[in-house]
Amino acid sequence: MKKIKILVINGPNLNLLGQRETDIYGSDTLDDINRLMQEYAQLKDIKLKLFQSNTEGEIIDCIQKNKNYDGLVINPAAFTHTSVAIRDAIAAVQIPTVETHLSNIYSREDFRHHSFLASVCLGQIAGFGVYSYILALQALENHLKSGEKKIIKPC
Amino acid sequence: MKKIKILVINGPNLNLLGQRETDIYGSDTLDDINRLMQEYAQLKDIKLKLFQSNTEGEIIDCIQKNKNYDGLVINPAAFTHTSVAIRDAIAAVQIPTVETHLSNIYSREDFRHHSFLASVCLGQIAGFGVYSYILALQALENHLKSGEKKIIKPC
Amino acid sequence: MKKIKILVINGPNLNLLGQRETDIYGSDTLDDINRLMQEYAQLKDIKLKLFQSNTEGEIIDCIQKNKNYDGLVINPAAFTHTSVAIRDAIAAVQIPTVETHLSNIYSREDFRHHSFLASVCLGQIAGFGVYSYILALQALENHLKSGEKKIIKPC
Amino acid sequence: MKKIKILVINGPNLNLLGQRETDIYGSDTLDDINRLMQEYAQLKDIKLKLFQSNTEGEIIDCIQKNKNYDGLVINPAAFTHTSVAIRDAIAAVQIPTVETHLSNIYSREDFRHHSFLASVCLGQIAGFGVYSYILALQALENHLKSGEKKIIKPC
Amino acid sequence: MKKIKILVINGPNLNLLGQRETDIYGSDTLDDINRLMQEYAQLKDIKLKLFQSNTEGEIIDCIQKNKNYDGLVINPAAFTHTSVAIRDAIAAVQIPTVETHLSNIYSREDFRHHSFLASVCLGQIAGFGVYSYILALQALENHLKSGEKKIIKPC
Amino acid sequence: MKKIKILVINGPNLNLLGQRETDIYGSDTLDDINRLMQEYAQLKDIKLKLFQSNTEGEIIDCIQKNKNYDGLVINPAAFTHTSVAIRDAIAAVQIPTVETHLSNIYSREDFRHHSFLASVCLGQIAGFGVYSYILALQALENHLKSGEKKIIKPC
Amino acid sequence: MKKIKILVINGPNLNLLGQRETDIYGSDTLDDINRLMQEYAQLKDIKLKLFQSNTEGEIIDCIQKNKNYDGLVINPAAFTHTSVAIRDAIAAVQIPTVETHLSNIYSREDFRHHSFLASVCLGQIAGFGVYSYILALQALENHLKSGEKKIIKPC
Amino acid sequence: MKKIKILVINGPNLNLLGQRETDIYGSDTLDDINRLMQEYAQLKDIKLKLFQSNTEGEIIDCIQKNKNYDGLVINPAAFTHTSVAIRDAIAAVQIPTVETHLSNIYSREDFRHHSFLASVCLGQIAGFGVYSYILALQALENHLKSGEKKIIKPC
Amino acid sequence: MKKIKILVINGPNLNLLGQRETDIYGSDTLDDINRLMQEYAQLKDIKLKLFQSNTEGEIIDCIQKNKNYDGLVINPAAFTHTSVAIRDAIAAVQIPTVETHLSNIYSREDFRHHSFLASVCLGQIAGFGVYSYILALQALENHLKSGEKKIIKPC
Amino acid sequence: MKKIKILVINGPNLNLLGQRETDIYGSDTLDDINRLMQEYAQLKDIKLKLFQSNTEGEIIDCIQKNKNYDGLVINPAAFTHTSVAIRDAIAAVQIPTVETHLSNIYSREDFRHHSFLASVCLGQIAGFGVYSYILALQALENHLKSGEKKIIKPC
Amino acid sequence: MKKIKILVINGPNLNLLGQRETDIYGSDTLDDINRLMQEYAQLKDIKLKLFQSNTEGEIIDCIQKNKNYDGLVINPAAFTHTSVAIRDAIAAVQIPTVETHLSNIYSREDFRHHSFLASVCLGQIAGFGVYSYILALQALENHLKSGEKKIIKPC
Amino acid sequence: MKKIKILVINGPNLNLLGQRETDIYGSDTLDDINRLMQEYAQLKDIKLKLFQSNTEGEIIDCIQKNKNYDGLVINPAAFTHTSVAIRDAIAAVQIPTVETHLSNIYSREDFRHHSFLASVCLGQIAGFGVYSYILALQALENHLKSGEKKIIKPC
Repeated sequence: MKKIKILVINGPNLNLLGQRETDIYGSDTLDDINRLMQEYAQLKDIKLKLFQSNTEGEIIDCIQKNKNYDGLVINPAAFTHTSVAIRDAIAAVQIPTVETHLSNIYSREDFRHHSFLASVCLGQIAGFGVYSYILALQALENHLKSGEKKIIKPC
Repeated sequence: MKKIKILVINGPNLNLLGQRETDIYGSDTLDDINRLMQEYAQLKDIKLKLFQSNTEGEIIDCIQKNKNYDGLVINPAAFTHTSVAIRDAIAAVQIPTVETHLSNIYSREDFRHHSFLASVCLGQIAGFGVYSYILALQALENHLKSGEKKIIKPC
Repeated sequence: MKKIKILVINGPNLNLLGQRETDIYGSDTLDDINRLMQEYAQLKDIKLKLFQSNTEGEIIDCIQKNKNYDGLVINPAAFTHTSVAIRDAIAAVQIPTVETHLSNIYSREDFRHHSFLASVCLGQIAGFGVYSYILALQALENHLKSGEKKIIKPC
Repeated sequence: MKKIKILVINGPNLNLLGQRETDIYGSDTLDDINRLMQEYAQLKDIKLKLFQSNTEGEIIDCIQKNKNYDGLVINPAAFTHTSVAIRDAIAAVQIPTVETHLSNIYSREDFRHHSFLASVCLGQIAGFGVYSYILALQALENHLKSGEKKIIKPC
Repeated sequence: MKKIKILVINGPNLNLLGQRETDIYGSDTLDDINRLMQEYAQLKDIKLKLFQSNTEGEIIDCIQKNKNYDGLVINPAAFTHTSVAIRDAIAAVQIPTVETHLSNIYSREDFRHHSFLASVCLGQIAGFGVYSYILALQALENHLKSGEKKIIKPC
Repeated sequence: MKKIKILVINGPNLNLLGQRETDIYGSDTLDDINRLMQEYAQLKDIKLKLFQSNTEGEIIDCIQKNKNYDGLVINPAAFTHTSVAIRDAIAAVQIPTVETHLSNIYSREDFRHHSFLASVCLGQIAGFGVYSYILALQALENHLKSGEKKIIKPC
Repeated sequence: MKKIKILVINGPNLNLLGQRETDIYGSDTLDDINRLMQEYAQLKDIKLKLFQSNTEGEIIDCIQKNKNYDGLVINPAAFTHTSVAIRDAIAAVQIPTVETHLSNIYSREDFRHHSFLASVCLGQIAGFGVYSYILALQALENHLKSGEKKIIKPC
Repeated sequence: MKKIKILVINGPNLNLLGQRETDIYGSDTLDDINRLMQEYAQLKDIKLKLFQSNTEGEIIDCIQKNKNYDGLVINPAAFTHTSVAIRDAIAAVQIPTVETHLSNIYSREDFRHHSFLASVCLGQIAGFGVYSYILALQALENHLKSGEKKIIKPC
Repeated sequence: MKKIKILVINGPNLNLLGQRETDIYGSDTLDDINRLMQEYAQLKDIKLKLFQSNTEGEIIDCIQKNKNYDGLVINPAAFTHTSVAIRDAIAAVQIPTVETHLSNIYSREDFRHHSFLASVCLGQIAGFGVYSYILALQALENHLKSGEKKIIKPC
Repeated sequence: MKKIKILVINGPNLNLLGQRETDIYGSDTLDDINRLMQEYAQLKDIKLKLFQSNTEGEIIDCIQKNKNYDGLVINPAAFTHTSVAIRDAIAAVQIPTVETHLSNIYSREDFRHHSFLASVCLGQIAGFGVYSYILALQALENHLKSGEKKIIKPC
Repeated sequence: MKKIKILVINGPNLNLLGQRETDIYGSDTLDDINRLMQEYAQLKDIKLKLFQSNTEGEIIDCIQKNKNYDGLVINPAAFTHTSVAIRDAIAAVQIPTVETHLSNIYSREDFRHHSFLASVCLGQIAGFGVYSYILALQALENHLKSGEKKIIKPC
Repeated sequence: MKKIKILVINGPNLNLLGQRETDIYGSDTLDDINRLMQEYAQLKDIKLKLFQSNTEGEIIDCIQKNKNYDGLVINPAAFTHTSVAIRDAIAAVQIPTVETHLSNIYSREDFRHHSFLASVCLGQIAGFGVYSYILALQALENHLKSGEKKIIKPC
């Protein structure tokens, strides 16, 4: 069986994890998260590509360049609420995508309750800290192995 | 170490799973889901209690009566969008709770985009079909084993 | 030809008909309405099952248990405006349904102008007092006899 | 007993029925509908006057000129959602009126969910195709024969 | 003089009082509140009937079955914000009703600022903890003794 | 000095005045109003042209054809709230215009509180019954005689 | 016949008339307006009382102290849009009232399009500069002489 | 024990009580209410200071000058819905405050459903006519005697 | 090859072009525009039918009567923002349609930013003055010649 | 060179500064602020007039009476969000004005995010505690010395 | 005559054209479009500069650097709905601009109906697929050759 | 004492200052502003770092890389209204920040009245042209020298 290739994208300011607002986001750094995901990936024989950027356009470029990947895990951070362009990129490349968040966005400011990406993703996992990423990898792996070719269309 | 006890609640019409709108909800029945969860639970030495009801009040009663449980996985179905009372029950018993959905509620009707429960839960997992429940169990297990005593408060 | 079987559900407080706010709802009791419908049904060789409840969950249970019925006439009363769960039950069992109201809900309070059920029903009949029910039975009978297998989907 | 006289008004584009969007409106033409209504009327000894126009002002003129009619069945089509003037005409002549629609307007575009006419009518019948008109005639007949002198006032 | 009979209804989760979120609701249990009310009632020669339920339908049933009571004190809890059906029940039985709340609902979440019941009640008392109930009993007693037959109508 | 020429336009259903809803609009007919205005006009040596129509397009035609008039008094009735086209006609011909209403539109239904015409008129006079028209004539006369060439522009 | 007594109230900043923003309000001062009204009043044998204040409370006091007046002409200026208290004062004393404005408030900022007073007044006259006051006096005089005892109630 | 000192403030137009809209507010005058409160206060050994004004600023001055009082009963009347400044005054002096209303503000116009003061008060009592004041005094007395030092903070 | 037949409809007040508000609409008259279009049509061997009306119903009649035309260019003017009936006419006859505007409607009043027609048209061209019509003809011609049978459906 | 004269106005409850909610407003009293400003003014040879009131009308009076001042620094406190009348006063006298706030109004309650005054002021300075006033004086001084005669007009 | 220089900017994800969602965007690639435009440009002796980027900032840089161009054709794609910064760039450089879209944005998701750019452009062309670009070039060329120096200002 | 280090960031299109819309932004270039700030900084012994970018991501990178700076002055220009990501960056690095604007954003388009950054800043200074920057430096300097360690948290 072909090795599953998953792209993991982290949005703006997530490079500061563990150094900022640790009461909301916990004390793990992005490196810690990446290490954790790599461990999980090795166990499951998944190939991971990890990317972080503070620039919306770079995230779009990254999605486009890796459109041969089997799946995408994305924590869009602030872009969740403002980026139609990332939404369009995901819809365009048609890679099955899981939106993930460290914190529970529904118990924060009102403007964080709306996601432009949610309706073009397979699903959403939010609120479990670092573990949200592992759950997202699993969800994606399970989806890809189920062989189901679900094309995601916004309604 | 004490066995983890998790309560699993399914809301209205989920007893019809597998018999209805299979394009949205898939062909697994609630029994299939329950069996899957029990298998997982046995593996992880978790004690599960499974409950389904079409009546909001019975769900509240169930939450109250099992307030000694360590965690709650709830798929509130239609009550997600209308029940302040279940929200208050979860807030009252302070059991760590994961809200879960079979379908991606964000790619459905507008009135399904708002959850009264989300902000009193640990987090939300939506869109992965039957597998959403397994992810929810894992999320809860991980949270409980991390020993962190996070009291959930709506903001 | 097989006898048509129609389920008739009346929502909360309709058991008080004829005893309450007679300027809005008229002086007929629920028994009067039921008798009238039974007379009509006998004439048309329709089998009726009559149900009333003040509890949303019992109405959902009733819809689910009678999913082999050919049609449903429902006066959801207050649940018209608040119940996503009854909407989901109707959508799930796929019984052709007519929503009916004694009074003209559009000339009452603003919150009575929106129906969660309307878009999963065949159609709506409102404002003709007791006679609304007879019209609903006719509408359903006509629909069923036309042999058209219309699956109702909310847009 | 005096013969009941009912005015039937069809709004804009209904003259195209049966020729357009037949998946929404069915294949019957306006002539078919009119013939069906005339048959019903003859049976019940009702005098019908049938009118269709694409011009709001002509519909208002028609309502005013026929204010001695006993009842009005109106399918206002697009004017349902935009015409305060037809609403005022109905309120002015005080003819008991039934609003009717071929399709279920509540499962169509959002702007079709609001009716300017509903609150000055006796009631509303929507979603039963051609049969909506027959139900409307019946509803009106029943109302007129019940001898009840209900003056319709918008709240 | 006939003994005044007052029905007291407590809505969902109020059976948990004193055990939950004591910073908002105080440390008194529902039993404590009931005892306090009984003491007051004995003093004033009032007959009390006390009822609590987590199920909307049971509360409606209770209101209907006790429609011969002289007054109703209701703390609808979460149902305050979601139940049109309880509103309709109160409007139907026409028992003079006082809505009461332990906490000041206006200094809590936005969705708690709107009450579906308020406009069919005599008045509202909110924010005085356990003492809110005693004030409600007094308000009702005073109203009933003033002999004024005020029929409450929502505007 | 040149005789002032004023065009007076009455919108839909105003031809029914005195015959309908006399509690709102009074018992004077449109003929009574016209006679009253003619008397006033003769006194002031004003030339009046009187026009009524139930059709928006005819009102626009009338405004365009009489663009050499010095002023316009318009009671747009229902078109007040729905006609952008009449607004555009007034803005196009640049005749100084007074909007007038028999009733106080601000103490009626919410949808009557907004006027599409108000901002392209000199001013508005509402609520004084038949006398509103005389006041409007006076206002216009005063404006025209003041020699001020005020071009009305919507902001 | 008893001399008609009319109270004229001018709201905040109207004492600056003629000195400020003359492109909107014209070059007449409040004294000019008062003189004009006095001339008109003498002609018609009306007794006028003229009052201006920048303080909401003083305007309310003035309305209350002069509740034996036959009519009130009020240009509430900025208080039009913010004062529920002046509205309540007018509703309380039940003096027939005409709301008047120098400028056309509907062609200015959005927040000037809503009046808290309009629905408790007889009617509104806006946009005719100084002449608005004379028209208001006439409207009031005409109303009072018509002997009609219209009690103004907000709907 | 120190005598409790309570300040009672009545807002705009309440000086007209008993003389105006008696169907809404009853026939008691402000003097009647004050006498009633004084009787109650003497019984309970409470010192009352009574104040009424139609001017927002005078009410703020009064609250500031009496900040050594133990409690405040305020019927803000129209200022309920418009005064941020009185809200700020109460929040500033930190006197425990009960907001009270004669009528049930929730069954009146929409703009009366929102209170700027509610969230800085202990609680609200509305709808019991004159008796609302007595209940408010009791609520305050009970709160003060319970020795609880609750600092009210808007959320 | 068959000659292409295009219907060109101009809505209310466009007959005044060149005579009114020339700063917004330019100095060309409707005749100038028509001449320009005819020149273009001759060049391209297109048959044009030109129609203007101030009456919504006449525009609908015109669309219906010419449903055998190959394409429609419509400048609906004010009806853009108010006419559901013209929208329905276009949807009914299924003629490929281009909506066009002389001015840039998005830099004018807010109510001009919404078009009821846009979603049933092929596309929209706005802001290029008289030249908008030529571009619309070209767009339509190009579409028709591409042989693509695109049925326009509103979503 | 002529000495610059600046009027400084403080709105409701600012006389309580330093005594109330010191976590929001700091511990300086209004006297402290005034002293600080006087020191600054002496340094810069500015003449200051200092005014505080809890009454909207007195603030308007003050602005009008001092319209010969060169500039105005205003902390409108609660009136920021509710006073159209103070806005109109500033617009009327055309004194260059700086709006200032001690706290950052954008990190407080939603209703504090809107200012009726902002668009008629030169600019706004908020969030720097006592120092906000000094910055405001500087901003005004700089503006006045730049000799630029900017007339402030709300858009 | 000087050669016209036109800058053509394509926004995010348009580099994927022809490879993605071909039912919405057609099968032409961006290269195809560019070739088509170059052919047209050569014919008309226009100099084109073609630019595409997924990064908002690069588009702004490009606009700024080419501010000596005579015109701009921009398909802002997702940035249409989210970018105030591109709007400001266009307003700043004052190059006459045509906004263009491949698809009819008005028959897609609600959030695509609003454009931040529209009001600073000459006009908008949407819905004609690849041909939209040619129409845009023509519109611009026509505008530039007409010699009219229209400065675009948002209202 | 340690030299204060302040980072100054200018958002999109501010590099065009002095060359564009000089009626809104004045004729000073960004270089002029920078020179002015450097002069002030030298005087006060402040170290300045100056940065401008049209790319949101570069501004975030800049904030992150300079998180050891003592303060931040930011004119976010268009990003004020659209960037949650810059808000999150400021909240993350916890540098005391002053938001500044050349123009008074409250007298411009509606969408410019909301700032995503305001609630995570110390305060806001808007409307004083180039001088806004000097005031911002002063405000920051004063804050930093006051030794107060205020952690800014959005509410």
